[in-house]
Amino acid sequence: MARPRIKDVARHAGVSEKTVSNVINDYVHVSERTRRVVREAIDHLGYRVNLAGRHLRKGRTGIIALVVPELDVPYFAELARHVIREAERLSLTVLIHQSGADREHELAALAGFGSDFVDGIILSPLALTADDVSDRAGAPPTVLLGELLEEGADHVAIDNEKAAREATEHLIGLGRRNILAVGGVEAPGLGTAEARTRGYLAALAQAGIPHRPEALLPVGDFRMPDGARAVAGVLRAGERPDALLCLNDQLALGALRTLYESGLRVPEDVAVIGFDDVEGGRFSVPTLSTVAPDKAAVARVAVELLHRRIEEAAQGPEASGAGSGGVQSPQDRVVSHRLVLRESTEGPGGG
Amino acid sequence: MARPRIKDVARHAGVSEKTVSNVINDYVHVSERTRRVVREAIDHLGYRVNLAGRHLRKGRTGIIALVVPELDVPYFAELARHVIREAERLSLTVLIHQSGADREHELAALAGFGSDFVDGIILSPLALTADDVSDRAGAPPTVLLGELLEEGADHVAIDNEKAAREATEHLIGLGRRNILAVGGVEAPGLGTAEARTRGYLAALAQAGIPHRPEALLPVGDFRMPDGARAVAGVLRAGERPDALLCLNDQLALGALRTLYESGLRVPEDVAVIGFDDVEGGRFSVPTLSTVAPDKAAVARVAVELLHRRIEEAAQGPEASGAGSGGVQSPQDRVVSHRLVLRESTEGPGGG
Repeated sequence: MARPRIKDVARHAGVSEKTVSNVINDYVHVSERTRRVVREAIDHLGYRVNLAGRHLRKGRTGIIALVVPELDVPYFAELARHVIREAERLSLTVLIHQSGADREHELAALAGFGSDFVDGIILSPLALTADDVSDRAGAPPTVLLGELLEEGADHVAIDNEKAAREATEHLIGLGRRNILAVGGVEAPGLGTAEARTRGYLAALAQAGIPHRPEALLPVGDFRMPDGARAVAGVLRAGERPDALLCLNDQLALGALRTLYESGLRVPEDVAVIGFDDVEGGRFSVPTLSTVAPDKAAVARVAVELLHRRIEEAAQGPEASGAGSGGVQSPQDRVVSHRLVLRESTEGPGGG
Repeated sequence: MARPRIKDVARHAGVSEKTVSNVINDYVHVSERTRRVVREAIDHLGYRVNLAGRHLRKGRTGIIALVVPELDVPYFAELARHVIREAERLSLTVLIHQSGADREHELAALAGFGSDFVDGIILSPLALTADDVSDRAGAPPTVLLGELLEEGADHVAIDNEKAAREATEHLIGLGRRNILAVGGVEAPGLGTAEARTRGYLAALAQAGIPHRPEALLPVGDFRMPDGARAVAGVLRAGERPDALLCLNDQLALGALRTLYESGLRVPEDVAVIGFDDVEGGRFSVPTLSTVAPDKAAVARVAVELLHRRIEEAAQGPEASGAGSGGVQSPQDRVVSHRLVLRESTEGPGGG
């Protein structure tokens, strides 16, 4: 079959070519239903927008940067794959920068690497403050991933507090009472770990389970060795948990190894649930229950929002006023998540 | 302590400042021993080269691109971390591009993304041919990772054939005879899988074990689901291997899960060894024996070689002639690897 064209998408979706074009250009006055039908047709036919010429005409490079703290935390690598796929539909090339959760690196990225070769930035910040983000005149359009740093920035995240509450409720529903939060931090902070800890505490309070501060296990980093070490530490101290809420899957996979070495059975002695739904948790022994964020949706919403901001920036402020259906005001987008229950909480029949 | 300066490095290493500068600028006439002493002093003191101004004076951006097939294969994400660390010492910023093992993407990367914002490229090719690499006048300096595509390109790799032979000899040494190669491909090809398969076949031949073509298990991709599926397939077909040589750790981790589900004990019934030494194999149940490439060395050699090529390109051809100690001729660098033996071949005492 020849490379599909816009008219093929229109025919397949049963809409006009103009409507297809509106969806591709992400105009707000297209209904959600039409948007979905057209997107399905685009996916089905493998249609690819050819914007290469357009980028250059408008003085752009067609390159966006994705800035994440650590690529060897699989969540970010998996998210990157989705961002690349979504960007490709708009003929945008994604270059990825690892910030190492270092503020200087994040600031350099926010400033577009001191160059003008990126049209826009998707940034998952760990060390930036709200002031860093607001104080950036002349920088490329930016969409933030994760917990909201400040009201004035576009951002995309799951409801981390709600997700952690649901995961904890699942453990409580299994009859567990001594539930440790691996990576938990009791603080008024704005980060993802703080939001997840709030959800954990809310679920305990709701069930009338008293919270002990030592049930929050601090970690240096959110990786397998940290999870393994944190759990080894409490077991050595004589703590006998019956469940672990791990704030990401890497911590949980490390914890599973320590529990195995300690002769504790999962989930019979200790039930374990993580966050992120990374591939490793689908193949671990036992397989890992987890909170699965809709990574494809995080990527799609972030790329579409950034693309719109880039268009707005090119058209100037008058084109995107409140009256014209534009999206000038900062967007706070929440995407869905779900609990995925596997052997580490449900036992051999549960995976 | 104040930020260390070049004179602090010189004092700590017991050499002159000029020698430190020579090491930093990677002049070839520094002895390997001096180079090592100076590098250790640089590491110890946390010295950072300040080249930012230099980049701009020379009309460069200080940005290099690392192009890998798939970031969510942990080997590449771990390698990226090392490349970023090495590049940082030279004040180079690394941007990462995922090619998806797609030839068009790899070609676009080779051409510097049609822009002049990258000073050089480190590329791990999967789909390119030798012609693609040689036919690139005007493109930025490039260093290839992995098996050699053609004589005329700089490249860095481990000795994949030797490494696979050693891993297979380890399995034979355990008394195993029915050793399957998961991901193996018997072909005259140039790729990494081909080189590893040659090593596997050489070890079998050396031990007088007849090779059966069906002992090579093809995979669609080098990921956990592919390893799990390939092994499930042969078990279903009644094959009863006593060992698996998996051509990367992701395949091996998938295979471990299938063996667990099949009630086969590792290593008692089936010994398993992988390639890459990714973090997941240090925490899996059982832990995974593997071939560990010296990833830090791959990254260091690649970044240093690329840095030198960028300098040469800036200075023009006369500065790097054969008589001046330059490195104009293409470099074919082999870095070391070692076998890391853990529970999946050695049993509970072996990790």
